[in-house]
Amino acid sequence: MGKKVVIIGGVALGPKVACRVKRLDPTAEVVVVDRDQHISYGGCGIPYYVGGDVADIEGLQSTSAHVLRDSRFFAGAKGVEMRVRTEALEIDRERRVVHLRSLESGDTSELAYDELVLATGAKPIVPPLPGVELPGVSVVANLNHAEKIKTAISKGQVGSAVVIGGGAIGIEMAEALTDLWGVSTTLVEMQPQLLPAAIGPDVARVMAVHLREKEVDLRLDTTVTKILGDPEQGVTGVETSGGEIPCDLVILSVGVRPNSQLAQAAGLAVGPTGGIQVDERLRTSDPRIYAGGDCVEMTHLISGEPTHLPLGSIANRHGRVIGTNLAGGTATFPGVVANFCIKIFDLGLFTAGLTEAQALAAGFDPVSTVAAQADRAHFYPSQDMMVMKLIACRKTGRVLGVEAFGPDGDAVKARVDSIAVLLPHEPTVADISNLEVAYSPPYASAMDIVNSAANALENTLSGRHEPIDVATFLELFDTEDAKVLDVRSAVQAGPFVAKYGDRWQNIPQEELACRIEEVEAADKPLYLICGSGPRSYEAQLLLRQKGIANTRNIMGGVKMLKSTDPDFLPEA
Amino acid sequence: MGKKVVIIGGVALGPKVACRVKRLDPTAEVVVVDRDQHISYGGCGIPYYVGGDVADIEGLQSTSAHVLRDSRFFAGAKGVEMRVRTEALEIDRERRVVHLRSLESGDTSELAYDELVLATGAKPIVPPLPGVELPGVSVVANLNHAEKIKTAISKGQVGSAVVIGGGAIGIEMAEALTDLWGVSTTLVEMQPQLLPAAIGPDVARVMAVHLREKEVDLRLDTTVTKILGDPEQGVTGVETSGGEIPCDLVILSVGVRPNSQLAQAAGLAVGPTGGIQVDERLRTSDPRIYAGGDCVEMTHLISGEPTHLPLGSIANRHGRVIGTNLAGGTATFPGVVANFCIKIFDLGLFTAGLTEAQALAAGFDPVSTVAAQADRAHFYPSQDMMVMKLIACRKTGRVLGVEAFGPDGDAVKARVDSIAVLLPHEPTVADISNLEVAYSPPYASAMDIVNSAANALENTLSGRHEPIDVATFLELFDTEDAKVLDVRSAVQAGPFVAKYGDRWQNIPQEELACRIEEVEAADKPLYLICGSGPRSYEAQLLLRQKGIANTRNIMGGVKMLKSTDPDFLPEA
Repeated sequence: MGKKVVIIGGVALGPKVACRVKRLDPTAEVVVVDRDQHISYGGCGIPYYVGGDVADIEGLQSTSAHVLRDSRFFAGAKGVEMRVRTEALEIDRERRVVHLRSLESGDTSELAYDELVLATGAKPIVPPLPGVELPGVSVVANLNHAEKIKTAISKGQVGSAVVIGGGAIGIEMAEALTDLWGVSTTLVEMQPQLLPAAIGPDVARVMAVHLREKEVDLRLDTTVTKILGDPEQGVTGVETSGGEIPCDLVILSVGVRPNSQLAQAAGLAVGPTGGIQVDERLRTSDPRIYAGGDCVEMTHLISGEPTHLPLGSIANRHGRVIGTNLAGGTATFPGVVANFCIKIFDLGLFTAGLTEAQALAAGFDPVSTVAAQADRAHFYPSQDMMVMKLIACRKTGRVLGVEAFGPDGDAVKARVDSIAVLLPHEPTVADISNLEVAYSPPYASAMDIVNSAANALENTLSGRHEPIDVATFLELFDTEDAKVLDVRSAVQAGPFVAKYGDRWQNIPQEELACRIEEVEAADKPLYLICGSGPRSYEAQLLLRQKGIANTRNIMGGVKMLKSTDPDFLPEA
Repeated sequence: MGKKVVIIGGVALGPKVACRVKRLDPTAEVVVVDRDQHISYGGCGIPYYVGGDVADIEGLQSTSAHVLRDSRFFAGAKGVEMRVRTEALEIDRERRVVHLRSLESGDTSELAYDELVLATGAKPIVPPLPGVELPGVSVVANLNHAEKIKTAISKGQVGSAVVIGGGAIGIEMAEALTDLWGVSTTLVEMQPQLLPAAIGPDVARVMAVHLREKEVDLRLDTTVTKILGDPEQGVTGVETSGGEIPCDLVILSVGVRPNSQLAQAAGLAVGPTGGIQVDERLRTSDPRIYAGGDCVEMTHLISGEPTHLPLGSIANRHGRVIGTNLAGGTATFPGVVANFCIKIFDLGLFTAGLTEAQALAAGFDPVSTVAAQADRAHFYPSQDMMVMKLIACRKTGRVLGVEAFGPDGDAVKARVDSIAVLLPHEPTVADISNLEVAYSPPYASAMDIVNSAANALENTLSGRHEPIDVATFLELFDTEDAKVLDVRSAVQAGPFVAKYGDRWQNIPQEELACRIEEVEAADKPLYLICGSGPRSYEAQLLLRQKGIANTRNIMGGVKMLKSTDPDFLPEA
């Protein structure tokens, strides 16, 4: 007989490891153990199942060829034994056995291994709130939760819901509830912004505006103190630092933690994130035990720090690496740059690398730029806007991170992925200025947003460009009695001049050289704006040349202004 | 006064250089000289203007803020002098003057420079065919040609057209004529495939099938010998190696050549492609003369060979580099990997790096794989298929090229760009297996096509996977009396079994282990097929394990079969 491989966990990583090792080494005896009866499913599809995009739960459990991935399938097609409804109680590394208990019969048993794989995933954090055990309060971590929630909604039992936690799952659940079911949904986030691990406050503000446009009642900077209701009637509301919110359903999505207790109890090294520590070959501190997916921590390739990044894509790639190594290969997984994306109603948001706050914490001196541009040639008939924030280190010009969004998520993905994959190679801003991305008018501008964002950042790094971000401008416009020079056409600027009077001057960029004497120099900075930023940058250069040096260029221009604070704009 | 910069050529590179140098060094005196009255336009938009996607010719000559980029605009907004309708006759490098002639008055003059920029672009090759000078025969190289062609079509003077040359412009023109105007269009290509500089014959065959589906009469392997007609009536047809084709319009699109005569006459180094030779800083062999865009040759970063790649995107990036250097900076442009894309009716085609033929010529030992996969999670409700061909060197595992297509061009762009930008870093197949691209169900599969194409290629490189490409299979199926084992479901395979009888056996993959004795070992290879390739790869491993080793897995499966030869499939 071949080697005995035992895998604890049967959702994403476990089945992938099992299939890969069996393909490479058909003699291996592979057993996968899982507590649940549901195995090998797309956990990241849960919000789409709840929201109705995925009609049946079987859709999440099937192969792309519509074959149900149940125990029989794994036995027949893959030669892998699946022990479902079975709990792994303990790992005896000396004797190389796992102690198991059947959740059906309660019987315990031992399972011997030559090599063991921990695919125990992550578990949702349940905040220690009064009322958290009430009926109608649920985390969203597996298909059982998903089914329960969807059943309640589809029976018409849910008129209003509160989602606690504005991370990816919280946002996706808020969309699922609002969009298809019309459930009146409040999203409560303790932090002053959404998704702080992925984006800066400026981009987060745009996402907040969009969620509110889509009728999600978003409460930032708000702490839930208590869940209200009684065991009979179930949940009736939540009590928060900002008042009470009545509801029929509470979704807990305050984050996940690596499921590493079994590893820890067996004396394996666990890192500062709570994830199991693994080397490049995904071996734990015991070379006979591998781990991957949501239960491990990985090296962030920019900060060098350990990081926990629970994503189905990483679990799948880990699975292949572990499967190869179990079969005698030497595959490696060096780490991540935290490439992350989410669809938020009509916007695709894509990010990679470090946010400015993370860059600062990692010892860099971050500086950023925001560019707004169409995703095809400006003369092409249909197009969408994209906004990209690019972050670099002021000292070295090394690119540290990127955040971008737009209505055409695929187009935004193209831009962010092309920067993300380079990040481990430590690209400079100049490298991105020259980045050779595909060009044809139906798919890009001749100077694509990746190039022009880097160009703008290079201009900032070299001191030519003195920018200001929209959020800071909005604050100063209120407090400073600031003045704006709008270099768009009279038609575009007119309504702004009408709304803001003396504080909003219009001289179109192509007339600025001749009308320069109309611009008054002042002690306070003059804020320059155009549609998206390039023309007001040119105006900044021209003004400086004419002795008016105290200016700031509003990055992303009116496009970013509109996404950040639609009420600032004159009525259309 | 500042330095005198003279730029010869005012379409893409020239204006970009002019604006950049003026922004960095406002004291520079910048003069741009161009023969045409049309300047600073998006030449790559010409097919979209002819096809009607771009309504007015001004659309191609305007900024993204809809300001017309004419001489007055450049003078007022940019401080740049445009001398249109002016020809540069000769460069006197000793005296540092350019000899000019006004095309209006015929007057000649001299223009002194401190630094000179050659932005002379490329010119269309006019094949030496009898009748090439007839009315109704046109190249498509500038706005004048575009206007003439569009006027003739919109007046209803064109019922049928012949496009000579199946490169990018020929294909785009064929689409423009067919799609909007309903002109009966024949596309004639001398080579046996379309786009041989960008794609292999297998992918080219799919593009040919698609063009024919869209009613372009495509004639490959066909040489035009004569253009028929008379000076009065104009063109009436073309004579080809495959017979006569009547038509009212002939478009010549057999390629372009760098416009380097002026440089050559001035004794500057010109390379084997006919392009002006430049260093990394885009200086010619005379350090006071820069050149960029369509008139230069660049280093191909994989083959190391000089290459000519006339693209508006590169001209723009060259423009910024030259502008920076003219202003005393030290920007560089190291070369290209030939990232190329085109929209062909309903398909987006994206490629980068070397084709297999080019890789062979460059001394590599190329091996490739074809993967077909959806562009989002398989459970997500809407999705399109993508097909990706990945090419690597057998000896080193280094990735050399990628070719991919699909209906959602933006999604395909994301995949190809993320590989293209890495190519200068010499990624291995294992690097692409682990490539960290963005994942969320609305935008990708957990195992994205970039990862799974690399996985398949790694399996091939390690000898586990014995593939065959669809085109070769189709040939052998005819000549060899070959047999196929279809491991899809009975429902999917049924019609194929009905059509091909004994030669098409069906055993679903999940039943194969139990029904292995139904597979007959034979001397001839057994061809394995599934929907897109992965299940038949598993079948191949299982069969080998059971002693049936003479098998070939059809790459891309039924999906690639359908794209390559729809008639091979049973009727729906």
